Amino acid sequence: MKLSHIVAALGGELRGEDRDIDRLASMEEAGAGQITFLANPKYRSQLDSTAAGAVIVKPALEEAASKVGRSLILAADPYLYFARVATLLNPQPAAVPGVHPRAVVGEGSVIAASTEVREMVSIGRHVTIGERCVIHPGVVIGDNVTIGDDALIYPNVSIYHGCRLGSRVILHAGAVIGADGFGLAWNTDRWFKIPQTGVVVIGDDVEVGANTTIDRGALKDTIIGEGVKLDNQIQLAHNVQVGAHTAMAGCAAVAGSTKIGARCTIGGAARIIGHLDIADGTHVGAGTLISKSIRQADAYTAVYPMATHKEWLANAAHLRHLGELVTRVKQLEKALQQAQDNKDPQP
Amino acid sequence: MKLSHIVAALGGELRGEDRDIDRLASMEEAGAGQITFLANPKYRSQLDSTAAGAVIVKPALEEAASKVGRSLILAADPYLYFARVATLLNPQPAAVPGVHPRAVVGEGSVIAASTEVREMVSIGRHVTIGERCVIHPGVVIGDNVTIGDDALIYPNVSIYHGCRLGSRVILHAGAVIGADGFGLAWNTDRWFKIPQTGVVVIGDDVEVGANTTIDRGALKDTIIGEGVKLDNQIQLAHNVQVGAHTAMAGCAAVAGSTKIGARCTIGGAARIIGHLDIADGTHVGAGTLISKSIRQADAYTAVYPMATHKEWLANAAHLRHLGELVTRVKQLEKALQQAQDNKDPQP
Amino acid sequence: MKLSHIVAALGGELRGEDRDIDRLASMEEAGAGQITFLANPKYRSQLDSTAAGAVIVKPALEEAASKVGRSLILAADPYLYFARVATLLNPQPAAVPGVHPRAVVGEGSVIAASTEVREMVSIGRHVTIGERCVIHPGVVIGDNVTIGDDALIYPNVSIYHGCRLGSRVILHAGAVIGADGFGLAWNTDRWFKIPQTGVVVIGDDVEVGANTTIDRGALKDTIIGEGVKLDNQIQLAHNVQVGAHTAMAGCAAVAGSTKIGARCTIGGAARIIGHLDIADGTHVGAGTLISKSIRQADAYTAVYPMATHKEWLANAAHLRHLGELVTRVKQLEKALQQAQDNKDPQP
Repeated sequence: MKLSHIVAALGGELRGEDRDIDRLASMEEAGAGQITFLANPKYRSQLDSTAAGAVIVKPALEEAASKVGRSLILAADPYLYFARVATLLNPQPAAVPGVHPRAVVGEGSVIAASTEVREMVSIGRHVTIGERCVIHPGVVIGDNVTIGDDALIYPNVSIYHGCRLGSRVILHAGAVIGADGFGLAWNTDRWFKIPQTGVVVIGDDVEVGANTTIDRGALKDTIIGEGVKLDNQIQLAHNVQVGAHTAMAGCAAVAGSTKIGARCTIGGAARIIGHLDIADGTHVGAGTLISKSIRQADAYTAVYPMATHKEWLANAAHLRHLGELVTRVKQLEKALQQAQDNKDPQP
Repeated sequence: MKLSHIVAALGGELRGEDRDIDRLASMEEAGAGQITFLANPKYRSQLDSTAAGAVIVKPALEEAASKVGRSLILAADPYLYFARVATLLNPQPAAVPGVHPRAVVGEGSVIAASTEVREMVSIGRHVTIGERCVIHPGVVIGDNVTIGDDALIYPNVSIYHGCRLGSRVILHAGAVIGADGFGLAWNTDRWFKIPQTGVVVIGDDVEVGANTTIDRGALKDTIIGEGVKLDNQIQLAHNVQVGAHTAMAGCAAVAGSTKIGARCTIGGAARIIGHLDIADGTHVGAGTLISKSIRQADAYTAVYPMATHKEWLANAAHLRHLGELVTRVKQLEKALQQAQDNKDPQP
Repeated sequence: MKLSHIVAALGGELRGEDRDIDRLASMEEAGAGQITFLANPKYRSQLDSTAAGAVIVKPALEEAASKVGRSLILAADPYLYFARVATLLNPQPAAVPGVHPRAVVGEGSVIAASTEVREMVSIGRHVTIGERCVIHPGVVIGDNVTIGDDALIYPNVSIYHGCRLGSRVILHAGAVIGADGFGLAWNTDRWFKIPQTGVVVIGDDVEVGANTTIDRGALKDTIIGEGVKLDNQIQLAHNVQVGAHTAMAGCAAVAGSTKIGARCTIGGAARIIGHLDIADGTHVGAGTLISKSIRQADAYTAVYPMATHKEWLANAAHLRHLGELVTRVKQLEKALQQAQDNKDPQP
């Protein structure tokens, strides 16, 4: 693809020769037929050494970059521009319409003719699936599920009965949507299971990572807002709500009935306990456990600082006596103050 | 369903009009045809505003609640009563007996005639499955597995050869029972795999959450006691034992050969290292790492307290010098004591 | 199997009677027809009480052990020897060659005649699978995947298009290889998905645990070195590299582009953030979050020490004021120094 074709499709300004580009590559690895980008100023020195045929840079870098003799595309946000070029060069394969004879579709289900249902797919009764979806092998869809247009459901995903998914959702392999929430009441000497009668509602443009689990609601529904992006192995418990365009990294977990605001970023392996409210725009650090509601958008962290095991041993045990240490410091302050008072006689 | 019908089935006492109820709802969302409950005194004020047709309350609240003009069911444990009403209103669909022609069943396997085996199920050789089970599409059951009566196995569950499951077990989608434990011996310059020759034994009334994994034992078996409840994405390593009626929340993990007592509650994302003994009735907080055996039932916690990232930065670095700080305080105490001793001359 | 047969196959020296052995067992549980081992000196006292027919011990223990009247096998590394005996007694069942009629194989795929493809397997187009592999039911393999010889792929594994797996790999049930990495660029008011154009490359002799996920690379590939052993529910993000013979325990997670060295051991539920370099031979403790590159092989730990909830409450809150406490101690030291200076008049 010619650079001029890219600029015609995506905007930005071409500087230098109109080369042919076959794919994207990192600054260090790109060759003459490849395009790369400079988003992080930290890597600016790589500009001199890259063998890339073309580089996407900010307009402010035009002068510096043009000295290197590469073709340039000037774009306000090179990282986003690179993402858009990648999409242009790697279009998602279109659905091959039709239901494979080795799929099973229950009675009363309506699947758009433009949708592709692969072998070994099981679709329950009264399911509705929109246009141009691709349902990969091994997917199991329960009764009364609805799915919008252009959904992409990878192998071995399980969707329980009654869940409702929007358009352009992507569910990666092994994801489980709508399993029972963990609802139990103690009954004398054993647990009594509480039926989970809600469903999972997933908005448009949501992506769900591999082996991520989203439980159905107990009475109300579990709700994933529009544009939410979930990485792999995330666990969302019953009645959780995730606001629009929030992104959660791998292994994050949210306990029951917590409501996460819009446009939050939740770091990998972060944990949020149940029945909390997290303000729009909150950032939670990787590995952080959130134990209280957050009313004020900010970045939150709760991580034990890493050390060699030997250093850790020399320090961690004292943590269990930190309260006593504070008391000892208080007593020292008092003692010193008294000594001071005794030395300075009243006038 | 009439309230009188509910009381006839479940006990409790009806006060007020015998209304028709179609489903359960939360206090805020319930309408005239719905029943709700008041278990947590914190929400007592909602009693005045709820539009529910009926409310389940403790007998002690009868007077206060009856003023509101709703029908009441008096029950000693409203939360448990609500769970039982939910079960009455939402019965699990019965098995539709028979093996689907698109399932595969190996030779020598015996499946009760009342059991439902859906399409795309693979059952190995010499498998025994009891009465009234439902095996959902995509489930794979290895050779020599035995399953009791009334089991409910959701889509894409994998059960390895030789595992034994009790009656009324529920396995949610994507759960893996009996994969090899992580057994390795170092052999000069590489790992040597240790065959895992035990199985997983799961007692009656156990529920296993979506994408939870329970490894088979190395020499002995991994044993999950009667009535144990496991949430999603839990990892139980080889030779773990979990005592009867213990409940573990999502993303908890237990390393090899640890023995957890009966009636424990293990919080979400809690981790328990290997070769420990955890006493009956122990409570482990969410996100807590348990590194030593627990002989005394109590609640245990080990969580770094959350803070804004800025506050965290201002504090966390000092943790790595906590041992030095303790030494400095000790020196101050000594110095102050000496100063004191010098000032007070011996008599 | 005779002990003499074992020694003939595996080396070591037989002492005492040449008994028949049917299986391995732990020291406490072994009976007369069973063989056990003593690797950890901590368990040496069990030698006197075991009913095992034979015990594998270090040569140095020959004299002590022979008094007990059991047969002995002397081996330099009894644990490794035990692992090799276990393999001898429990050989992996050989593949039953052939593609099951209820599997689906796409055009252009080449599967060695000695390989077993079970029912409900879906294999895409232009896939290459080597000799003597066993592909269990429910496995889905995307287009253009290549797999070496003697691979063992358990039920419901999903392998995305283009991934390349070596020989003797073992993938446990529910593992997902090659799902999209979590690549997003913020575009005004929503996330823009970055196509993930790399693949996953897995070396020879790699084992991947149940429900573990390994994402495909963004531009470059995600690379798992030869002999790497991954336990269950591990998450490896896009462009991660894991060096040869590194072992990672259950629920460990590694964020994008991090490079882990060779022969590392990563503890259970350890987390390693993105874009780091971890030196060869590093040991990371269970539950530890690694937030900086590690240049020096050592053992690293970052775990909040466990306590009863009451003790924890008495201490944890002070952590948020640790910086202030350090300042107070500094002031005390200064005040005491000044008091000292005032008391000692200049000469």
